[in-house]
Amino acid sequence: MPEHRNPYIQELVDDGEKDYLYHLGLDSGMDLPAMFGDVKFVCMGGSAKRAETFAKKLAHDLDLGIDPESLKPIGKTERGSLFKVGPILSLSHGMGMPSMSIFLHEVTKMLEHAGATDYRYIRIGTSGGVFRPDDEKGGTIGVGVEPGTVIVAEQAISEELQPIHKKVKLGKVHSYETWFDEEMAAEVLSVRGDIRAQIGKTMGANDFYEGQGRLDGALDPGYTEADKLEYLNQAYDVGVRNIEMEAPELAAFCNRAEIPAALVCATLLNRLEGDQVTSTPEQLAEFSENAQTLVVRYLRKKLNLSVADAI
Amino acid sequence: MPEHRNPYIQELVDDGEKDYLYHLGLDSGMDLPAMFGDVKFVCMGGSAKRAETFAKKLAHDLDLGIDPESLKPIGKTERGSLFKVGPILSLSHGMGMPSMSIFLHEVTKMLEHAGATDYRYIRIGTSGGVFRPDDEKGGTIGVGVEPGTVIVAEQAISEELQPIHKKVKLGKVHSYETWFDEEMAAEVLSVRGDIRAQIGKTMGANDFYEGQGRLDGALDPGYTEADKLEYLNQAYDVGVRNIEMEAPELAAFCNRAEIPAALVCATLLNRLEGDQVTSTPEQLAEFSENAQTLVVRYLRKKLNLSVADAI
Repeated sequence: MPEHRNPYIQELVDDGEKDYLYHLGLDSGMDLPAMFGDVKFVCMGGSAKRAETFAKKLAHDLDLGIDPESLKPIGKTERGSLFKVGPILSLSHGMGMPSMSIFLHEVTKMLEHAGATDYRYIRIGTSGGVFRPDDEKGGTIGVGVEPGTVIVAEQAISEELQPIHKKVKLGKVHSYETWFDEEMAAEVLSVRGDIRAQIGKTMGANDFYEGQGRLDGALDPGYTEADKLEYLNQAYDVGVRNIEMEAPELAAFCNRAEIPAALVCATLLNRLEGDQVTSTPEQLAEFSENAQTLVVRYLRKKLNLSVADAI
Repeated sequence: MPEHRNPYIQELVDDGEKDYLYHLGLDSGMDLPAMFGDVKFVCMGGSAKRAETFAKKLAHDLDLGIDPESLKPIGKTERGSLFKVGPILSLSHGMGMPSMSIFLHEVTKMLEHAGATDYRYIRIGTSGGVFRPDDEKGGTIGVGVEPGTVIVAEQAISEELQPIHKKVKLGKVHSYETWFDEEMAAEVLSVRGDIRAQIGKTMGANDFYEGQGRLDGALDPGYTEADKLEYLNQAYDVGVRNIEMEAPELAAFCNRAEIPAALVCATLLNRLEGDQVTSTPEQLAEFSENAQTLVVRYLRKKLNLSVADAI
């Protein structure tokens, strides 16, 4: 177990006790090395349904000889769903950083108990874009002004527009860095082919409505359309290109754990143009599919399968 | 629509546009008054499975002439599940305050669009207890030192042990009060009968591991068992009797919206004795059931059904 990991867990196991991974419904008394020792990638997203759909897509697209219909969730499904497709896990973490944090802790402990090595985490999500018309001209990396553009994160930004993640431990605030793995982000972007994708900073908020400056929550937010646009433009100016609810927790956790991680999000709307998600279910499915397809191509590359065929 | 609610939503509807309740999969173009106009109680908990189980329990226990097996989720189920049992909704909100916040906003907008009146919110959850042995002697209200005791919250407390909830809006921190409805808490407690239940303050943390002072996360937490116990004892001293992940958001939202709300949580372990949830699935189900049963008795009382029969 690496130095930065929790020595207390090893003590627990050395003392002959079990480590209960409560929200996964697994424990260290199970044969985790046989179940998960070969894992190299953990792909995660908010919803249990998407974890299942993505697992089936992996089985279908990766020529691993796994029947998509044979896939069943592992452990309990009350809090999240976990699927295994060869060396890849597909996991749901719910919405928001507190929920994601639970699964990051438990899946990491699970992989440590299993003796897995050199594994990487990839979150595939949906988000609101923050695009100005001049993005249309494209930067050095890609273009994107319409919903559907995929953002590969270089860094997570907090609601307070800071490149840090604050966590309260024993009542005191601690700040952690929020860089994502630069090489991994570049490698994901390199296989984009026909998918509109670009590098950008991703803001992670603790709320979908007021925390993201929306005006359409249930309560009087106490700010105006003009205030909102000022805030979103400030976010744009520090490099934010999309907003979701998990980025800083993912980046901070993986920095502390020294696990290379990538954040790959579809954008469902342009927040500089509105708050409501008004696209049809078919359009939303297509946008979401773009992010998944990009990650599948990256996984093909890493598993030494042909990427050219897939692009 | 009350003054404190968001005037922007009324404008949106007056302009002939739809309000998309994105995570519920419903919108204001549907006949929400026919679907939800009669709702008086929204019961909510973390998991979709529990929302379904509780809805079936309500149909079974409340003599409303509703077949438990006929209950189907309303709207989409990707992010949460919503069931209706007469004047009662059973809703899942996921884990953590950001996730809960989404459902509080959307279910409240839904009830406003529906023209529902005088409705109340009740969260039924699981939590870690913070009990000292002298609780065994009981206070004026109840006793409770073992896991399984139900805590009815009088106030929510933050991770920083403050009776406030901080929300970031447009990058600035705002603080909100976290009292729960005193009369409603007392009324819930009044029907406890044989269930071990007491009034207490409930701490809501943004994390299950480090945010609650656990030592058994994946990372080196940077604090010791002694540090943890000092923190948990400080929490006890300000009145905290249990710890979960939603209390301050629920209290702050309902205070702002002027919706009477109660928080009723089972305790699964005593955090002054350990971090791990080691009870058997059967014990955990029984603990969780205690909180549900208490709320069913309260609902019977409010719906003018016999409570004496149920106790």
